[in-house]
Amino acid sequence: MPLLFVLAESALERIPKELWKHPSVIKTARSRRKRPGSMLLDRSLHHHAMKNLPLAEKRGRPDIVHTTLLYVMGTPLNRAGLLRTYVHTVDDHVIEIDPTTRLPKNYNRFVGLIEQLYEEGEVPPGGPPLLKLRRETLPELVERLEPDRVIAFTRLGEPKTMEEAMRPLAPLGKPMVIVGGFPHGHFSKRTTSLADELICIDEEGLDAWVVAARAIYEFEKATGLTRKRLPKRKSPGE
Amino acid sequence: MPLLFVLAESALERIPKELWKHPSVIKTARSRRKRPGSMLLDRSLHHHAMKNLPLAEKRGRPDIVHTTLLYVMGTPLNRAGLLRTYVHTVDDHVIEIDPTTRLPKNYNRFVGLIEQLYEEGEVPPGGPPLLKLRRETLPELVERLEPDRVIAFTRLGEPKTMEEAMRPLAPLGKPMVIVGGFPHGHFSKRTTSLADELICIDEEGLDAWVVAARAIYEFEKATGLTRKRLPKRKSPGE
Repeated sequence: MPLLFVLAESALERIPKELWKHPSVIKTARSRRKRPGSMLLDRSLHHHAMKNLPLAEKRGRPDIVHTTLLYVMGTPLNRAGLLRTYVHTVDDHVIEIDPTTRLPKNYNRFVGLIEQLYEEGEVPPGGPPLLKLRRETLPELVERLEPDRVIAFTRLGEPKTMEEAMRPLAPLGKPMVIVGGFPHGHFSKRTTSLADELICIDEEGLDAWVVAARAIYEFEKATGLTRKRLPKRKSPGE
Repeated sequence: MPLLFVLAESALERIPKELWKHPSVIKTARSRRKRPGSMLLDRSLHHHAMKNLPLAEKRGRPDIVHTTLLYVMGTPLNRAGLLRTYVHTVDDHVIEIDPTTRLPKNYNRFVGLIEQLYEEGEVPPGGPPLLKLRRETLPELVERLEPDRVIAFTRLGEPKTMEEAMRPLAPLGKPMVIVGGFPHGHFSKRTTSLADELICIDEEGLDAWVVAARAIYEFEKATGLTRKRLPKRKSPGE
């Protein structure tokens, strides 16, 4: 403990310059009264604009980050202060999220918050920062955090149940779990080479939030937290 | 098997008549070119309008339904065809979701789909329906589905780990799990009286999607599905 959770190569970035003049981008910029370069790339709005973008299948899905973070930040492990959460993006930024952060549950507000984060470098701008953004590659992040073991989940890994994967991490001081934050495709070689172990938990590709949820839950179970957090009573109101 | 999953008293409804003339409602109606009565109530847009609404703390949160369904529909249990998913709403509608449905990952598209569902009664309008809507109370739904056991999760229930809660359901023919689809408060008496057992899994109130995720996962484990779905190989590409 604590567990370091990294959503890696996440499909989150600002709209790249080569798309600023595309009609769908101009349209969202006008209706939101923003500069194209200050908005997040979002396939649900910019699908056609993304057609000629390199590696397009791994880009433009901030909703994956949002849904996964909603899950992760709401776990008992995080509430107990035993989880550290990082979002590494496809264009090598890292967002560090304070465990006490209450993220917007609404998607549009989440997008607005992340856009503000890219403008300011941290949010909220006044008080102590809850989200911090820096330019950092995944190898740099791993080097900075110094985990004692790194496991990554990929369909190309060794088949193991999540319980088998997470139980060995429980006694460690600072284990790290890496889950892919993109809709299709596989980790880059740079990412897989960082992992001590590559693990496959299902015969089908699973959504990032499903993998994250199960990893965190099995870590809670393996460390005894699940049982420790049960209320000490037998019936209501006692 | 299968497991019946019910998100109950969910904070999902169309904007009620008494709010149609509120400025924030008129504003969203104009920008979306919709009638106020055909749009979903959403606290992130209609917070001020909701001030005098009865039971407001349990209403106007379609994002809770969206996030929970994203999780539920992506589980191996659902992909294996062993999960039946129902959304019961605070104003007594029931949405039945075909297990093969691929819900919009984007929140705004999800809202549009549910609004269309309320207009048409089922979607998509042409082909075989993936989502069906009917007027139905929770007692009526339970009576129609005839589960052999019903458990509901609430902080007022008996403290048990999720594993202890779900293991006894595995051998049953048609067990039902009820999770609250609202942000604050507790189930109504009408709901709790339907359950054979009320269970509390944590000392704090947890988000609907966290409870749903853990219930489904423990059911998978208890039925042996998790292990059965591991690929039959030892290393990549074999």
